[in-house]
Amino acid sequence: MLKVAVIGATGAVGQEFVVALNKHKWFELTQIAASERSVGKKYVDAIRDPNSGILRWHNREQVPEYVKDMVVSKVEDIKPQDFDLIFTALESDDAKIVEPKFAKTTPVISTAAAFRYESDVPILIPGVNDDHADLLNAQRKTRGWNGFIAPLPNCTTTGLAISLKPILDKFGIKKIFMTSMQALSGAGRSPGVIALDIIDNVIPYIPKEEEKVQVEAKKILGNFVKDSIAPADFRVSCTCTRVPVIDGHTETVFVETDKTVEPEDVKKEMLNFSKNVSISKLPTAPSEYIVVHDDPTRPQPRIDREINDGMTTVIGRLRKDTAFDNGIKYVLLSHNEKMGSAKGAVLLAEMLKTQKIL
Amino acid sequence: MLKVAVIGATGAVGQEFVVALNKHKWFELTQIAASERSVGKKYVDAIRDPNSGILRWHNREQVPEYVKDMVVSKVEDIKPQDFDLIFTALESDDAKIVEPKFAKTTPVISTAAAFRYESDVPILIPGVNDDHADLLNAQRKTRGWNGFIAPLPNCTTTGLAISLKPILDKFGIKKIFMTSMQALSGAGRSPGVIALDIIDNVIPYIPKEEEKVQVEAKKILGNFVKDSIAPADFRVSCTCTRVPVIDGHTETVFVETDKTVEPEDVKKEMLNFSKNVSISKLPTAPSEYIVVHDDPTRPQPRIDREINDGMTTVIGRLRKDTAFDNGIKYVLLSHNEKMGSAKGAVLLAEMLKTQKIL
Amino acid sequence: MLKVAVIGATGAVGQEFVVALNKHKWFELTQIAASERSVGKKYVDAIRDPNSGILRWHNREQVPEYVKDMVVSKVEDIKPQDFDLIFTALESDDAKIVEPKFAKTTPVISTAAAFRYESDVPILIPGVNDDHADLLNAQRKTRGWNGFIAPLPNCTTTGLAISLKPILDKFGIKKIFMTSMQALSGAGRSPGVIALDIIDNVIPYIPKEEEKVQVEAKKILGNFVKDSIAPADFRVSCTCTRVPVIDGHTETVFVETDKTVEPEDVKKEMLNFSKNVSISKLPTAPSEYIVVHDDPTRPQPRIDREINDGMTTVIGRLRKDTAFDNGIKYVLLSHNEKMGSAKGAVLLAEMLKTQKIL
Amino acid sequence: MLKVAVIGATGAVGQEFVVALNKHKWFELTQIAASERSVGKKYVDAIRDPNSGILRWHNREQVPEYVKDMVVSKVEDIKPQDFDLIFTALESDDAKIVEPKFAKTTPVISTAAAFRYESDVPILIPGVNDDHADLLNAQRKTRGWNGFIAPLPNCTTTGLAISLKPILDKFGIKKIFMTSMQALSGAGRSPGVIALDIIDNVIPYIPKEEEKVQVEAKKILGNFVKDSIAPADFRVSCTCTRVPVIDGHTETVFVETDKTVEPEDVKKEMLNFSKNVSISKLPTAPSEYIVVHDDPTRPQPRIDREINDGMTTVIGRLRKDTAFDNGIKYVLLSHNEKMGSAKGAVLLAEMLKTQKIL
Repeated sequence: MLKVAVIGATGAVGQEFVVALNKHKWFELTQIAASERSVGKKYVDAIRDPNSGILRWHNREQVPEYVKDMVVSKVEDIKPQDFDLIFTALESDDAKIVEPKFAKTTPVISTAAAFRYESDVPILIPGVNDDHADLLNAQRKTRGWNGFIAPLPNCTTTGLAISLKPILDKFGIKKIFMTSMQALSGAGRSPGVIALDIIDNVIPYIPKEEEKVQVEAKKILGNFVKDSIAPADFRVSCTCTRVPVIDGHTETVFVETDKTVEPEDVKKEMLNFSKNVSISKLPTAPSEYIVVHDDPTRPQPRIDREINDGMTTVIGRLRKDTAFDNGIKYVLLSHNEKMGSAKGAVLLAEMLKTQKIL
Repeated sequence: MLKVAVIGATGAVGQEFVVALNKHKWFELTQIAASERSVGKKYVDAIRDPNSGILRWHNREQVPEYVKDMVVSKVEDIKPQDFDLIFTALESDDAKIVEPKFAKTTPVISTAAAFRYESDVPILIPGVNDDHADLLNAQRKTRGWNGFIAPLPNCTTTGLAISLKPILDKFGIKKIFMTSMQALSGAGRSPGVIALDIIDNVIPYIPKEEEKVQVEAKKILGNFVKDSIAPADFRVSCTCTRVPVIDGHTETVFVETDKTVEPEDVKKEMLNFSKNVSISKLPTAPSEYIVVHDDPTRPQPRIDREINDGMTTVIGRLRKDTAFDNGIKYVLLSHNEKMGSAKGAVLLAEMLKTQKIL
Repeated sequence: MLKVAVIGATGAVGQEFVVALNKHKWFELTQIAASERSVGKKYVDAIRDPNSGILRWHNREQVPEYVKDMVVSKVEDIKPQDFDLIFTALESDDAKIVEPKFAKTTPVISTAAAFRYESDVPILIPGVNDDHADLLNAQRKTRGWNGFIAPLPNCTTTGLAISLKPILDKFGIKKIFMTSMQALSGAGRSPGVIALDIIDNVIPYIPKEEEKVQVEAKKILGNFVKDSIAPADFRVSCTCTRVPVIDGHTETVFVETDKTVEPEDVKKEMLNFSKNVSISKLPTAPSEYIVVHDDPTRPQPRIDREINDGMTTVIGRLRKDTAFDNGIKYVLLSHNEKMGSAKGAVLLAEMLKTQKIL
Repeated sequence: MLKVAVIGATGAVGQEFVVALNKHKWFELTQIAASERSVGKKYVDAIRDPNSGILRWHNREQVPEYVKDMVVSKVEDIKPQDFDLIFTALESDDAKIVEPKFAKTTPVISTAAAFRYESDVPILIPGVNDDHADLLNAQRKTRGWNGFIAPLPNCTTTGLAISLKPILDKFGIKKIFMTSMQALSGAGRSPGVIALDIIDNVIPYIPKEEEKVQVEAKKILGNFVKDSIAPADFRVSCTCTRVPVIDGHTETVFVETDKTVEPEDVKKEMLNFSKNVSISKLPTAPSEYIVVHDDPTRPQPRIDREINDGMTTVIGRLRKDTAFDNGIKYVLLSHNEKMGSAKGAVLLAEMLKTQKIL
């Protein structure tokens, strides 16, 4: 068993880490840290809202027993050398300071954007760009670290990149237009989106989100040659919105391809990719990496987000595009707090372990 | 005063007609018709759900006094020659049968799709393609009718076409990718969308909607020459979804233009268009035809849909597109039951009256 | 294995039956029936909305494999003698006609109200009034049936009666004031509550609901002596409302007791009752029949409804009442489609089997 | 014109004050104050969320022009002697310190609970207990103030007390059991209720709310004799919950009366009271103080809350109670941010002015 810590364990993403690591075969969560106001409290007390008294927990599973009485540490009191791996769920500004300290001695898997865009840092999605993981070794060398920092993509990028991978490999991609309808849990709980702002409403703006997706999709699907990543050659344009949905990001995607493309061919490629995905034997991997619906009313977030415990990218409405000469359009659903966040981070840890990078 | 009838007066759109014609300066509603189960009832009783007893009325304004006791007629009992104009809010299949009968003697303005795609039928948006109205005279001649059928566009097309018009005129348009997040009222009330299907959810499919918008946008923005409409030369691709919003369709739009384009130029063109729109003096015209927000969090349906009583197309998030060589992207909001439906139909009637076609 | 049929298998409650009987240890579902428009279709096709194409299935579990291809029979084609037990999920008017036909040869467990208020018909809640089951034998005799009709209570009564039982036994009850905030699934799906009526809203009326609860609570908690049930001696007053919640009825309850009562005593009695409940070993029984929260923000429907797969009555906010001389108030949550409906019916079947009445 | 200031002008209630005072006939808002982070900003900038950039304004009316550029002052910089009246919308802890300072020189009308329960402080509802206003003169004397503090009731008490008044006067009241389903705006916006906690949910607890209503209803409806208020002789028990509704508190009420009572008599008394209410000529008074629906599906918050701009208490479902010997039950709706808050405060100011207390 590898010993792991979770930093930022009380927030939305941190809670998913606590669930994802419950009874994990390879990883044992032995310490949790969070912000000042939680320090010294038992976990189950730290996640309670101090004003309303409401337990700020919205996972379908109850708070796991193993963590309830674990006392929350100060981030500064974490001794990275005590751990084989540290998961961080921090705001970007905090991550910028804390993660390099940890990485000196210990591998860090991070949900923050802080290091995603540095040239010696890969943005890894297991099964999609496993070969980029080698950049972590280069990173170690360049920075003189024993550990490394491996950030996840933004939760809105994850499902998009997964769905694009089989299209890119078979048909080539020129342009992508994506509109997201993002879930509330993506904005966290402190306070995240307040109810008065979103009931019976859509908010057509999520600060910095579009820029992240546009850059990350190209980096993830880029080529890794000679210790550096050449961004993919396509162009991406996004509009990101918030809708009154608890969990699960829905995205409409229009893709211009290099070659002629038919919906049934894309479906075939997606299912092939899913079937043969490199990471299918890992403990946290879903039985299907991609599901493709023929039912035009799917995917729907409330119905489809929990399939395979939120680790599957669900595709529907595959149609020939009507504006591109060669193009395809579809709708995708990806669970922003499972595959797009903590559980995806655990899957990445598993992949890095099998690759012996961890 | 012109005497008008409303057919389908008890449904979602019919209710908006009843409100839009309340105390109208030029039109007097003297008869209403609806389906079998409402016939013979007073209006206020006919709009009550027979099972739950709930008044199926969701307008912010109360049921207008003038119509409460008006008795609902059978559609077959309407004598078209008694009216100067008939507004219809029928399902497409019914419209196909009823509207031509009326049109023999009397002008018909329709919210149904039934005749939209016929070559002698214009799809008119006041202020956008007023010159197409002349096709109604050709229609009269060809069909040997005293009246005519003038259909509105689909409610999802309306705001899109209005927002595209100033872009097309100044910069030219090559391609459009649009994703809609449509309101529940667009699906009506019999039963429309049931609550169990949409709370905490998005439904990524609205039957036939995308095809309608794709065809209609090209026809509306096409050129009218020699008694026929040549569809606009651009290509359109849409994905239409349903979200848990009561009223107001939100749309994200990516436009490839012929010429280089900057957001501030588009804003200027939109505001110019709005200021100089042909129909600005009509009774139902809003004080602003287009509003452009600099605030990136706007438009939001719950906050912006009632501006100018739902007759304004609200634009926000104007940005240079990142995937097209020349392109612009933005978000629009249009009130599907006001400008996109009954009130838009009344505005059209006003325009046709000033054009002496009515 | 007992052979069972489900009548009304495609509706909201029917779907829960199909899930509840999936891999059941004692019961094998071998035939399903539903209304005309479903007859002859495979189950998975019959539950699809014919207009929108939407799969009308909202269970968290997917449609079970065993039933997907089962063809829907006509109700009239069901041969009751082929079954050991028939579950019905019919509207009351249909139940009135169909259920007595079946009951001539075969036991019927029904979710309909049709026979609840007849003197030889018990309303059974397993663990609460098991002794009333004997009335089924009397019913058989009186009516000359081999089978019987055993109706469930209304889904709003179930949790209320369970929570009152330990209070009644220990402290006596004089009066009950209950306000329900009922979930949308309680109104079914054809069409049930439409979204336009309930988003951002409360509907303060559910036809006939209050009368049902007021009568049923007294019958269920009444005394069974000499083959007849004497209604409990307390008085009940309810107001039933509908709120924008998918599943799970929340009820606020004010109880006047005969004896002095403290919240901690009620908690103790409830937990004792739960621990020693007669049916705790049955396959469908939950590990806890009642859960009592000290956290004042619980129960909450979205968080608590799925505990023990919806079979637990969840209590919170136990407080001394401030208006009664002797009284207690609390909030309860009961899953209207699980314990309050199909799964509760299966639990009842299990109880009747162990009692050898089935 | 009286010169007034609003303290706490940027919050939920403060925004309603700003709207309620727009173009007021008698009062001119000349200064606004708010918390540290707003000080020095223009009003329209101060109400913008610093993180998301979202305008935290949810009134149906747009931000009034007159206040947009008004600069927010520090509370400490308010010179009370410059004003004829000060409206405060502060948290209770702040009110406790600030309001007495102001009251030395200037009348204060407050939405805070801080002073509600002191013996020389009346809780006034215009039209309900106008005679209690005289206690303000006693308060001035006792405390040696030129001004006074006049607090509004809690927003959940307001509609309840108004609806009880005609019942009390005619039939006498013994006991009241009330369950509230409260709107989100009642919890404010900083952050108030977060969306993840309330969508598809009910929260059965609002800290301190029940105690407030229980005490306030008795004080408001009590007798004012010899400079002191004797609480009304009835007993009250409440359960207060939060539901996913934007505005408008719905309450179910069960009342035990002294005398026999029929629903039609209560309706008559309520309408009489409404017709003859003392304050009917005041600028902010609604044309109907109480509306009584016969339609059992009313009141509904989304449909009824804006009637008479939120100043009317809407009653429905008047029925004979089934558990009391003499009793009535009903449902009420009161707009928590209009009559229950800022607009109600302005109405109170108008009443005090006509009474020459202001």
